[in-house]
Amino acid sequence: MKALQYVEVGKPPVVVEVPTPEPGPGQVRLKVTAAGACHSDSFVMGLSEQEYAQFGYPLPMTLGHEGAGIVDKLGEGVTSVAVGDAVAVYGPWGCGTCYQCAQGKENYCERAAELGITPPGLGHDGSMAEYMIIDDPRHLVPLGDLDPVANVALTDAGLTPYHAIKMSLPKLVAGSTAVVIGTGGLGHVAIQILRALTPATVIALDVNDEKLALAKEVGAHHAFLSNAEAPAAIEKALGRKTVTAVFDFVSIQPTIDLGGALSGVETDQVIVGVGAAKADVGMLAKPYDSTIRSPYWGARAELMEVLNLARTGLVHVETEVFSLDEAPQAYDRLHEGTLRGRAVIVP
Amino acid sequence: MKALQYVEVGKPPVVVEVPTPEPGPGQVRLKVTAAGACHSDSFVMGLSEQEYAQFGYPLPMTLGHEGAGIVDKLGEGVTSVAVGDAVAVYGPWGCGTCYQCAQGKENYCERAAELGITPPGLGHDGSMAEYMIIDDPRHLVPLGDLDPVANVALTDAGLTPYHAIKMSLPKLVAGSTAVVIGTGGLGHVAIQILRALTPATVIALDVNDEKLALAKEVGAHHAFLSNAEAPAAIEKALGRKTVTAVFDFVSIQPTIDLGGALSGVETDQVIVGVGAAKADVGMLAKPYDSTIRSPYWGARAELMEVLNLARTGLVHVETEVFSLDEAPQAYDRLHEGTLRGRAVIVP
Amino acid sequence: MKALQYVEVGKPPVVVEVPTPEPGPGQVRLKVTAAGACHSDSFVMGLSEQEYAQFGYPLPMTLGHEGAGIVDKLGEGVTSVAVGDAVAVYGPWGCGTCYQCAQGKENYCERAAELGITPPGLGHDGSMAEYMIIDDPRHLVPLGDLDPVANVALTDAGLTPYHAIKMSLPKLVAGSTAVVIGTGGLGHVAIQILRALTPATVIALDVNDEKLALAKEVGAHHAFLSNAEAPAAIEKALGRKTVTAVFDFVSIQPTIDLGGALSGVETDQVIVGVGAAKADVGMLAKPYDSTIRSPYWGARAELMEVLNLARTGLVHVETEVFSLDEAPQAYDRLHEGTLRGRAVIVP
Amino acid sequence: MKALQYVEVGKPPVVVEVPTPEPGPGQVRLKVTAAGACHSDSFVMGLSEQEYAQFGYPLPMTLGHEGAGIVDKLGEGVTSVAVGDAVAVYGPWGCGTCYQCAQGKENYCERAAELGITPPGLGHDGSMAEYMIIDDPRHLVPLGDLDPVANVALTDAGLTPYHAIKMSLPKLVAGSTAVVIGTGGLGHVAIQILRALTPATVIALDVNDEKLALAKEVGAHHAFLSNAEAPAAIEKALGRKTVTAVFDFVSIQPTIDLGGALSGVETDQVIVGVGAAKADVGMLAKPYDSTIRSPYWGARAELMEVLNLARTGLVHVETEVFSLDEAPQAYDRLHEGTLRGRAVIVP
Repeated sequence: MKALQYVEVGKPPVVVEVPTPEPGPGQVRLKVTAAGACHSDSFVMGLSEQEYAQFGYPLPMTLGHEGAGIVDKLGEGVTSVAVGDAVAVYGPWGCGTCYQCAQGKENYCERAAELGITPPGLGHDGSMAEYMIIDDPRHLVPLGDLDPVANVALTDAGLTPYHAIKMSLPKLVAGSTAVVIGTGGLGHVAIQILRALTPATVIALDVNDEKLALAKEVGAHHAFLSNAEAPAAIEKALGRKTVTAVFDFVSIQPTIDLGGALSGVETDQVIVGVGAAKADVGMLAKPYDSTIRSPYWGARAELMEVLNLARTGLVHVETEVFSLDEAPQAYDRLHEGTLRGRAVIVP
Repeated sequence: MKALQYVEVGKPPVVVEVPTPEPGPGQVRLKVTAAGACHSDSFVMGLSEQEYAQFGYPLPMTLGHEGAGIVDKLGEGVTSVAVGDAVAVYGPWGCGTCYQCAQGKENYCERAAELGITPPGLGHDGSMAEYMIIDDPRHLVPLGDLDPVANVALTDAGLTPYHAIKMSLPKLVAGSTAVVIGTGGLGHVAIQILRALTPATVIALDVNDEKLALAKEVGAHHAFLSNAEAPAAIEKALGRKTVTAVFDFVSIQPTIDLGGALSGVETDQVIVGVGAAKADVGMLAKPYDSTIRSPYWGARAELMEVLNLARTGLVHVETEVFSLDEAPQAYDRLHEGTLRGRAVIVP
Repeated sequence: MKALQYVEVGKPPVVVEVPTPEPGPGQVRLKVTAAGACHSDSFVMGLSEQEYAQFGYPLPMTLGHEGAGIVDKLGEGVTSVAVGDAVAVYGPWGCGTCYQCAQGKENYCERAAELGITPPGLGHDGSMAEYMIIDDPRHLVPLGDLDPVANVALTDAGLTPYHAIKMSLPKLVAGSTAVVIGTGGLGHVAIQILRALTPATVIALDVNDEKLALAKEVGAHHAFLSNAEAPAAIEKALGRKTVTAVFDFVSIQPTIDLGGALSGVETDQVIVGVGAAKADVGMLAKPYDSTIRSPYWGARAELMEVLNLARTGLVHVETEVFSLDEAPQAYDRLHEGTLRGRAVIVP
Repeated sequence: MKALQYVEVGKPPVVVEVPTPEPGPGQVRLKVTAAGACHSDSFVMGLSEQEYAQFGYPLPMTLGHEGAGIVDKLGEGVTSVAVGDAVAVYGPWGCGTCYQCAQGKENYCERAAELGITPPGLGHDGSMAEYMIIDDPRHLVPLGDLDPVANVALTDAGLTPYHAIKMSLPKLVAGSTAVVIGTGGLGHVAIQILRALTPATVIALDVNDEKLALAKEVGAHHAFLSNAEAPAAIEKALGRKTVTAVFDFVSIQPTIDLGGALSGVETDQVIVGVGAAKADVGMLAKPYDSTIRSPYWGARAELMEVLNLARTGLVHVETEVFSLDEAPQAYDRLHEGTLRGRAVIVP
């Protein structure tokens, strides 16, 4: 079968021919119907050889941690799914038995590192191939009638902002305000989730007018350029300087500083993008009980909730579709920042 | 000044001329701009002499526990509001110092009964007059630019369903379902609050097509007649027999039985209307961890949140406007069930 | 091997010789180290033939839904436990993939009935045998150094009250009060959990002085006879008539009525025992926002938390130990109400 | 009357004779029975003239933001307290009407700065005098039979850690671990609160053996020197490197770095002391969903809960008692770090 693989550190991924994999006992094989391309793939392919080795990822590795498919073959002992089922893949695989996994929070599995468990596409072979192997049927969520191409990205670009927002829901009451920094693959879904789950006023920040237009189209009440004037624009729109929550999908020092500047008492600053920065903390440096945290992906039940949002029409992902052969171009476009929403590969 | 007073048990209320009241130390006088008529007024006026005496209400009593006005005169020592401020009245007055009041939950004041504290219009003189006295400025919430006539009913018809719904919010995730029984004054606001605060599918039940049409107009996904076929209609619409939450604004034995029939594991059955009934409880009679509760009005901060919903256009109350002289007719119409939404008196 | 089986409706269970079972793919066989006897077993053995058939239970059926053991043999494909591991059995088995199971709440599995999934000992063969089969390794929780005999009862007699209490924790602040009705197998653990997890004042009610003495020994601040004078005794001890939460492990009409009588605003009345009764509900019959609910067993992560309570010495179960041959007597003693705490069978 | 006043920036406070104040309308005068001395007083007296001016504090200013007393005289219109009542003072005064104050969270009043509202002893005259003025009776909490000298410090040294801990309660389940850095006035109460409210294992860190002994005496399971070996000592005690929550009452760069080093997935790092530092944040720098926040004092209802902890004997404050004339020495001892627990002034 064909697969898009990362084969050499620093080189673009390539489409190769590999043997079609067989499911072992307790495993499931999917015929892939859609696979999403994500900034974290670019992040991984931007690592140096040394860094890549530190992550412990193999080479070659089939890309793709967002996946949907049709159950195609069952390993021995599998009974909870059936051949022909349309499913989405829950990506942040865990051990299934630790305290976190016992709550379905496999994204925070306590034993994944120790046991060498990694998500598909981020450590072992992923969804950008004609077929993929799922280690356990619990990592499959029913898609039903949902279009896999339109919705595959919800498995990360939907689930990640959903989890990020869900922890702040008790604060996002009527009269509250939420800022979304970066309105790309994840951010434009975040806006829709905020509108569906909260009565908050939603403000989007991004770097060009096209992205701001998309932000407003998907529900942002206000959209401003993410520059030095942003705080003043926000203050003018809201009549106050600070906001209830900031969801930062860019996560570089300037956006993290901006999130700090928009923080007031009890503000949640949520750094969702892959990044790191310095921040001032402590009672003399940060407003009281304002928090900073960095969530990662989401829980199994949260993925079911995200798909339910799609079912009721409350969330949809802007997608551009590519064939498997065109997949390398999808990553080029992602890198350039010229995608509208999410790139989806249809093998 | 003119006031609508209940003067004799069992007789309709009448418009009378009474002295304009003066605010004592720490009190505030409002020039009333709007006053809402509520089923609980009808309930009170339907009590027998003996029952009325048990409630400890005086005669005559100016009606009206939903009020809005302009601050007109300050009692000695009042500094936190100013003459000319447009305000709404928080009705469930409490002592201000007990454990519940210390959280702003004056609706559950621990000492109100002992101290003889009652809401305006439900124990002492209320808002259906040209002027009214507020016992403490903390019972006033800024209205700002909100139209008092359009929004006065939010102080009860908005706050009561808001509080009822807020406790169930953690369950009302994507994929959940909420049933609203009774789509009148409170129920038609409940539908809007559910849509604004949750991604739940909302089903309205009422007794005639006109009310069902209003329910759908304000956001219900489905609306069915509240009869013996309702469970089947709901099952057909949802593909399942039970729902996540039932908000019952009728609260008679048949609707409470219906709420029980719609209850599954962890369902919240919320009996909001003034009523009582028998229910089967216990592990062998009710689905696991399904709950029954009867909330009452709401907290001070919740009223602020409800007004914020109105500010962002997420909730509006259907109103029919009456002058003070026409107020008795408003109660007739309320009793007949022919009002569309809420009757508001403009003195 | 030997097993304690229920073989004929209405007859006492008997010890029989049966073939030692073999684990299928994905299953695990335990060498049982301890098995707890529970009132729900008595309840099941008290059903009429017709009722027993309605529950869909087989005959013969090996009893025991509380179990601990040593992993003895692995079915094909099992990797997350190893032969020799000391484990406790999570009893309320579910499908593992539905929305509830995805959160580890297999006690509320949405598909268990449809798929015919039942707990061991309550639908298929349980722990009262030399060996037992576990359908999936996720239903095993590490015991580590914990003594299986002393702690096996935590899998139900600990987990059930733990889950019941956990939902009420936000209300059980300093100054709150909790009543435990029935201080037997589950109730005497409930008292300890309340003391370990909350600063609440704990009041125990039971029918004789011996049980009240045990209640005080395990941490109850007050212990009273569960009779008509109980409300007055509680009022005298607390200086108020109502309490914050009632955990009712008896769950018959008189105790459910008592729980209602002790309910004030926002009280949680939690009916934990197997039973059913009538209750008055609605704003005119029940204090505002007081709730009634009937929990069932608990979640996977909650069992881990309960075992952690035992590890830190905060909970221990009073037990009387019986051999497998003596197991029928254990049920006699349970039926008579003469056990101190829990009967544990050691095969 | 006598009062301990701060009269000149950089000089020690002095006992002076000042006129006994009179309560205005709505105010209350207390005969002070106890006043606590706090590190934040030292912080204020350590400010430069310029910094002091920035805080907007007056000179002279009577010190003392922890206070208890007997109601001595009522201003006009005050009815909710009576002369002779024993009370504690809720210190973080707010406006009483904003969204935060409407929930009793006056510590986070939205309008305090704008309206010039400050706590007693931190902006206007405080409790270190024979008499003090309370601006509103809602800032008084009944003490009842509680000894004012033994418990006055709970108004800050109890309330502040209580609020800090309360937000982390959902994480502090059985099996969790909490680290308290600094076991002085606030820290030694934090240990007791953690033991009373949670089943967590509590680890105390401080700089000398005497303080570690106090920590263990009041309930810490482990106590280690707060030095470079602390992480290793904690890992050895717990069998893991990270903890569930860190409550840092020192809040300097080294302790904040230590808190970061002890943080794992979802750890709460709570910086309670007056300080500021740099921290690394973002997905590549901090464990997933670990949080950093700096709480400030607490809510009105929380103070009632803290006093209830004292009533049930679950919390007591170590105190050293000083007369008003000796009060300057109390601050010397506080500065030297030689106090055992809290210094309390009895005027």
